[in-house]
Amino acid sequence: MSKLTKDSILIDGLEYCNWDRDLFENAHQSGITAIHVTLVYWENTQEAFEKIKYWNNLIKEHHDLITQVKTTNDIINAKKNNKIGIIYGFQNSAPIANDIYLVEKFFNEGLRFMQLTYNNQTALAGGCFEPIDSGLSRFGHAVIEEMNRLGMIVDLSHAGKKTCLDAIKFSKKPVAISHANPTFFHKSIRNIESDVLKKLVNKNGFIGLSLYPYHLKNLGKCKEGDFAQMIKDLIQLIGEDNIGIGSDLCLNWPNEVVMWMRNGKWTKKIDYGESKEKNPEWPELPSWYNKPGDLKNLFYILTKNNISEKISEKIVGTNWLNFMKQHF
Amino acid sequence: MSKLTKDSILIDGLEYCNWDRDLFENAHQSGITAIHVTLVYWENTQEAFEKIKYWNNLIKEHHDLITQVKTTNDIINAKKNNKIGIIYGFQNSAPIANDIYLVEKFFNEGLRFMQLTYNNQTALAGGCFEPIDSGLSRFGHAVIEEMNRLGMIVDLSHAGKKTCLDAIKFSKKPVAISHANPTFFHKSIRNIESDVLKKLVNKNGFIGLSLYPYHLKNLGKCKEGDFAQMIKDLIQLIGEDNIGIGSDLCLNWPNEVVMWMRNGKWTKKIDYGESKEKNPEWPELPSWYNKPGDLKNLFYILTKNNISEKISEKIVGTNWLNFMKQHF
Repeated sequence: MSKLTKDSILIDGLEYCNWDRDLFENAHQSGITAIHVTLVYWENTQEAFEKIKYWNNLIKEHHDLITQVKTTNDIINAKKNNKIGIIYGFQNSAPIANDIYLVEKFFNEGLRFMQLTYNNQTALAGGCFEPIDSGLSRFGHAVIEEMNRLGMIVDLSHAGKKTCLDAIKFSKKPVAISHANPTFFHKSIRNIESDVLKKLVNKNGFIGLSLYPYHLKNLGKCKEGDFAQMIKDLIQLIGEDNIGIGSDLCLNWPNEVVMWMRNGKWTKKIDYGESKEKNPEWPELPSWYNKPGDLKNLFYILTKNNISEKISEKIVGTNWLNFMKQHF
Repeated sequence: MSKLTKDSILIDGLEYCNWDRDLFENAHQSGITAIHVTLVYWENTQEAFEKIKYWNNLIKEHHDLITQVKTTNDIINAKKNNKIGIIYGFQNSAPIANDIYLVEKFFNEGLRFMQLTYNNQTALAGGCFEPIDSGLSRFGHAVIEEMNRLGMIVDLSHAGKKTCLDAIKFSKKPVAISHANPTFFHKSIRNIESDVLKKLVNKNGFIGLSLYPYHLKNLGKCKEGDFAQMIKDLIQLIGEDNIGIGSDLCLNWPNEVVMWMRNGKWTKKIDYGESKEKNPEWPELPSWYNKPGDLKNLFYILTKNNISEKISEKIVGTNWLNFMKQHF
């Protein structure tokens, strides 16, 4: 039977957990190499700097298990030192407000992924939940140039379709959709249409596949085999090199946090986001993927479903690493 | 000859000056009743609260000449006390970031006008300089509901056309374009097309006419008679009740400030805004309108150009007052 070795690379392209010792240990025991962690959604500049301080302290506290990585070389070194590499990311551009110079300030703190939008329109671009997607604004173009210059990955998760197409075309470096699935697998406002995926990959862009229930066929009841079949179909569409996992695991949070993610402070009414049933709770996760370490198990799910060991290894980690090498 | 009396109302619907004793005295000597003053363009939340403190102190310092007004009744009382009423406004929504609760916090400090955008896209709406105007976003709709509830005037100056049309339609209270001219007078990205003006006034909205050179026929060389003719033509189009003056005087600032207004911190390149000649300096003002007190002289310019005394009085002030009464 195919298996992972101690040299295998396992990278999760997005998680938003309320991390504690147990979660880090779970990931560490499974040999996770690196995780792109979300620091903020709606937070303003000052709050974002505070989240960075919070994470810097968290890394100090658990320094035997984790270490911050700012370059792909740091990821390799973290692995050598038996630590998980932590990559900072923002799921919104709210922290940079109207100030292009903040991009570099956050980059210097280790920010390596930034979404242009989180569901709603920003000064930069259009969100996937907006009735009309502006595409990239004047500031959006300027910020992408700055991110390209620095080596910060443009993340188009939660962006509108026109924004995705604009950014794919405009960015001088390949862009990522860190956590979403194809709409051919499951129709959802957050999932990505095939024409966008093809254009993304034509510019060497990247998609991290999501385990968040609202992105899955049959939500939390999605079967392993269905997820594996989605990957086989996606490989048919865009090849095997530009696909990874961005699990979108959101663990250890109270239900207030999913409602905060949807509503921030932008509305006095209640918005239920992706939940058509107006569910104010975290959705039920698939039984086969509900912990950070399950990325390792996914490798075996894929090989069991007749995806080759070589391709499965690429999907659970080496593809992300190769993509990141183009940036930092 | 027609003349103003001590009871006449003179209201300037927008000025952005670096106010000092001389400027306040100039306005006071001319009997100006009230001025909507711009506090911020690109400033973030904290900077905006600091500007409010700055203005509160300025009003204390010159309390014999000016007083802050929060209601139209305050404007009447200010006049009785021989003081100019000062109305606070923002030329952008940057200070409210993503936080709808900040609208009320700023309202409580006296904010009575807020633009949704300043040239560029914001989280609320599209700017007039954007290649694509989104119209009102989800947050934009929520903020207008909140402004309506509180009695803060939605100002569409510097917004894109779709945003103007969306806001005119959506707002439950009439909206203003505090400083712009009709495009039939002078084609400019900041001026307003006739179809928008008609829809604005059909919903009882308001336009403040601008003396900023880039909004004028022949720029700073615009003749008094041409400006008066514009008003006569505009009255033909939309009637005489929804028109006022928003002079857009920007006095006493170094040239760095006009470049800051155009560029904020949103670009590392140089944007010249409305200046087709890439002029990095303040444009030359009309000889007949270059001081706050010139609003009084404008009354005589209008009557000299065969606009009735009654209509001229409405345009230099009472129309604004009646419009404001619907809000605060």
